[in-house]
Amino acid sequence: MLRTNNCGELNLSDVGNRVTLAGWVQKIRNQGFVIWIDLRDRYGITQIIFDEERTDKKMLEKAQNLGREFVIQVQGTVIERVSKNPKINTGSIEILAEDFQILNASKTPPFTIENETDGGEELRMQYRYLDIRRNPVRENLIFRSKVSLAIRNYLSAHNFIDVETPYLIKSTPEGARDFVVPSRINSGEFYALPQSPQTFKQLLMVGGLDQYFQIVKCFRDEDLRADRQPEFTQIDCEMTFVEQEDILNRFEGLLKHLLQEIKGITIDEIPRITYSEAIKKYGNDKPDIRFGMEFCELTERAKGKGFQVFDQKELIVGIAVPGAASFTRKQIDALIDWVKRPQIGASGLIWVKCNEDGSYKSSVDKFYSQSDLEDWATATQASAGDLILIMAGETNDTRSQLSALRMELAEQLGLRDPEVFAPLWVIDFPLLEWDEENNCFHAMHHPFTAPKPEQIELLATKPEAVNANAYDLVLNGNEIGGGSIRIHDKKTQEIMFDLLGFTKEEAQAQFGFLMEAFQYGAPPHGGIALGLDRLVALLGGQETIRDFIAFPKNNSGRDLMINAPATIDPDQLDELNLKLKPKK
Amino acid sequence: MLRTNNCGELNLSDVGNRVTLAGWVQKIRNQGFVIWIDLRDRYGITQIIFDEERTDKKMLEKAQNLGREFVIQVQGTVIERVSKNPKINTGSIEILAEDFQILNASKTPPFTIENETDGGEELRMQYRYLDIRRNPVRENLIFRSKVSLAIRNYLSAHNFIDVETPYLIKSTPEGARDFVVPSRINSGEFYALPQSPQTFKQLLMVGGLDQYFQIVKCFRDEDLRADRQPEFTQIDCEMTFVEQEDILNRFEGLLKHLLQEIKGITIDEIPRITYSEAIKKYGNDKPDIRFGMEFCELTERAKGKGFQVFDQKELIVGIAVPGAASFTRKQIDALIDWVKRPQIGASGLIWVKCNEDGSYKSSVDKFYSQSDLEDWATATQASAGDLILIMAGETNDTRSQLSALRMELAEQLGLRDPEVFAPLWVIDFPLLEWDEENNCFHAMHHPFTAPKPEQIELLATKPEAVNANAYDLVLNGNEIGGGSIRIHDKKTQEIMFDLLGFTKEEAQAQFGFLMEAFQYGAPPHGGIALGLDRLVALLGGQETIRDFIAFPKNNSGRDLMINAPATIDPDQLDELNLKLKPKK
Repeated sequence: MLRTNNCGELNLSDVGNRVTLAGWVQKIRNQGFVIWIDLRDRYGITQIIFDEERTDKKMLEKAQNLGREFVIQVQGTVIERVSKNPKINTGSIEILAEDFQILNASKTPPFTIENETDGGEELRMQYRYLDIRRNPVRENLIFRSKVSLAIRNYLSAHNFIDVETPYLIKSTPEGARDFVVPSRINSGEFYALPQSPQTFKQLLMVGGLDQYFQIVKCFRDEDLRADRQPEFTQIDCEMTFVEQEDILNRFEGLLKHLLQEIKGITIDEIPRITYSEAIKKYGNDKPDIRFGMEFCELTERAKGKGFQVFDQKELIVGIAVPGAASFTRKQIDALIDWVKRPQIGASGLIWVKCNEDGSYKSSVDKFYSQSDLEDWATATQASAGDLILIMAGETNDTRSQLSALRMELAEQLGLRDPEVFAPLWVIDFPLLEWDEENNCFHAMHHPFTAPKPEQIELLATKPEAVNANAYDLVLNGNEIGGGSIRIHDKKTQEIMFDLLGFTKEEAQAQFGFLMEAFQYGAPPHGGIALGLDRLVALLGGQETIRDFIAFPKNNSGRDLMINAPATIDPDQLDELNLKLKPKK
Repeated sequence: MLRTNNCGELNLSDVGNRVTLAGWVQKIRNQGFVIWIDLRDRYGITQIIFDEERTDKKMLEKAQNLGREFVIQVQGTVIERVSKNPKINTGSIEILAEDFQILNASKTPPFTIENETDGGEELRMQYRYLDIRRNPVRENLIFRSKVSLAIRNYLSAHNFIDVETPYLIKSTPEGARDFVVPSRINSGEFYALPQSPQTFKQLLMVGGLDQYFQIVKCFRDEDLRADRQPEFTQIDCEMTFVEQEDILNRFEGLLKHLLQEIKGITIDEIPRITYSEAIKKYGNDKPDIRFGMEFCELTERAKGKGFQVFDQKELIVGIAVPGAASFTRKQIDALIDWVKRPQIGASGLIWVKCNEDGSYKSSVDKFYSQSDLEDWATATQASAGDLILIMAGETNDTRSQLSALRMELAEQLGLRDPEVFAPLWVIDFPLLEWDEENNCFHAMHHPFTAPKPEQIELLATKPEAVNANAYDLVLNGNEIGGGSIRIHDKKTQEIMFDLLGFTKEEAQAQFGFLMEAFQYGAPPHGGIALGLDRLVALLGGQETIRDFIAFPKNNSGRDLMINAPATIDPDQLDELNLKLKPKK
């Protein structure tokens, strides 16, 4: 080793020891006759001191030439510091340098290697190796490694087998777009990178492996939105001879274990809500339940009082914003403008202030009496001091608009505490959703999700009414996982493909192997997949995943550091029997 | 759960309990008035009994229709068996069936689901999910999962951070061929799948992560040989501020830990041999040292005695085969034929029998006296009863021919015991090897391997003489890993690229980011990568990796189960701006 100790471990008990440290120059304070250097490595910072009296002259001179981020090796003795720094582990000691070597010099970094850096996103990505030197990024990566190991050990202890499924598989042109990989040996043919190991894990269950897990990269060639990555990591699991309840319990156990082990937080049983209830109560299927402001439908109560705006609407729905009766007119107008923005698209917002004296003041005082308003307050469970906000319109749109407003208000009111963890199971998802645009059904989860056994007859007559034993695990308003009980017989799978608009031939070409497998004693099974990137970010108290990924890509799918993707050698294309078409 | 217990756990202490089991029908013995079923799951086999006296008639009739591999759920009571089977866990009990349900039927499997199957390789791959039901394949996959977790826990306990590096990276047309992935968003550009995360792990060291590991899929588009896979799994590691010794010690520790924890075997310190010594002593750089038969050069001793065949040759080299003096003429002729096969390409084989009475009998008695032969016996350390086999010719060819013979003999003599583990470090690899065909140097390990510091000057004058702090870990004649101390400064990396025939522009385009990174305080670092597939197979006592991979590809890179690669939709090609060239 080029060091006897790392930069984070020496303390008063080491005083007098001769040590060798190696690390990066974080900071230099040069007073001419004395030089202090903060030497940094992954484990911490140790102060090095050179001074006129105790250090060789030449050494002191040489130290004058050190710069930020130089890598040096230092030999010296641990001494007690005069002015101690209680904030760091090594703050009571320093190293009186006897000798040092420059292991590597450094140009001036393009941004400061500090907790708060002056580097912009693009620059940080281009020099990601420097960005990783910053404490917050490094700590995130170490945190991810810890979470990932805790997951593996928990699942292994519960009899899950870690099986690696292939990355070079077959393209299935449904769902999201596949990344494809041309085969050279099989000219004109392509592999695809997996969007998930879904069919393989099901085949492992058919193969009798009983319980499977894998922490695995998955790939989707989608037009990237902020905070989406073309490659992402999934905790993929499947279990045999189980019912929905068994899966929920096991993964509730996993999340509790992680919160306990990683964060030291004990949580109660995870509440459950049906999909339709979630939509009704929160306007979306991944509600943040760290705070209330549940939806209250006022349609019956608010119609027929002469307020035409309401009378014409399908749905009238409100929330009680705690303590917001004190909002100024300006604040309320800002909210109205906010919901009218094209991203939200609402036509307006009605408000009712619940005054401390028991009276009500609203934007619709002309149409509604105090007792009407009191009725609304009772319904929305608004107390004195709260502000009721009401939206009206077509049911689906209105719900999603109010849902957005609810989240915005929670943000503004500081109700989304990242160190509070409120997981939630959303269950009973519909099996199918109708796609207006393409005039066909889509699978709400995926084509392998089983209908609820008691509803299987409905598939033929009223498929849109069929629910599935499908569930999402939601954490603080983010979907962190989803799964279902799967179809395990050929007939049901065929009906499903048929409903999804596959011809018999298409179904056979793409999933023939699976339907074949179902005929050789496929057992009942089900599973779940959790998004590791988001789970880790949320456990780390953040909502953006990018800084929990060592080398993320930007929104154009580009790695700015290595500059990929890039053109390839014409010979490579030739070997693959491919030609680029002229650009349009 | 669809079961109260699994099929591997019930025993006499459970007698009297009502249980529900679920699993596959492994075997049915039907005597009309009584039916026994072996019910199988991942955990074992439990015998189910239906009989005329104690079972409902209808149930007995229904059970008549069960077939192999049907999936059933059985309710019944645990009873003591009359004729016990001590070979299995559950052999003392059986389940007196009260009721059962068919969870899924099964067609007759295309091969028997037994330890020894009648299914050929192709058929097993096509129905891999059935193959996985067989004990040996299932046990291999469980074994792999166990090894992989033990590796993770060992490395994590030693401060290695598990970091996921990207799969969509940039193509570098050197080394093996890359698989490429066309980018849709960046039309005309391609990602490449990593052959290894080499540069990324080095950048993590530049980023100060200090110690990294990852168990990661890597990809090589090579013309496949038997027992090679286009995707394979690597245990990838890197360490900062280390010397070769530190890396050897840490990974010696890992292997010892695995042998102890997984196999219960304690091994001594792993011996080391230099590359040149390995070539001299064993004719190759991954010697199997479970047995002797070390090479002994007889060039000086055997020349000049009138045997022209030897006199003309560059190298004369022999081995002493223990106890093989008793080989018949026929056996020896078979060996001679074996080395003359075109795969080996030797011109012949000289033999000397060391008789029990101290005399010698050889194929060259005409030219050599008994005392000459005694001299050879002394040199090769042959004892009475041994057979000396000698080959002669051009040095490199002769060594590799004798090496092949040595392995073949060990195989024939049963010296390659798969439950004996003899690891070996091969060190001091040359930095470069001369490529006759292309008239240039190749990197013996890879272009990022550092020359030995004391030989750096030689790079300019005699690069072929430069060695590297590069090492391979060899286990039972198989290379299971390799690594090196890396270059960490721009200048040396430039010299290296230059020697490897890169123009300045090519080096910049492909590895500019790395050389840029080296200028910002890159620390000294080094690492290793182990092949998980082979390591697991060897620990499992086997040499072929295929049955330690859940879904392997065949020698044409094809997944016979899902039938990939395959043609893709013309729309997909269109979106990627690609065209297939007409087939040649």
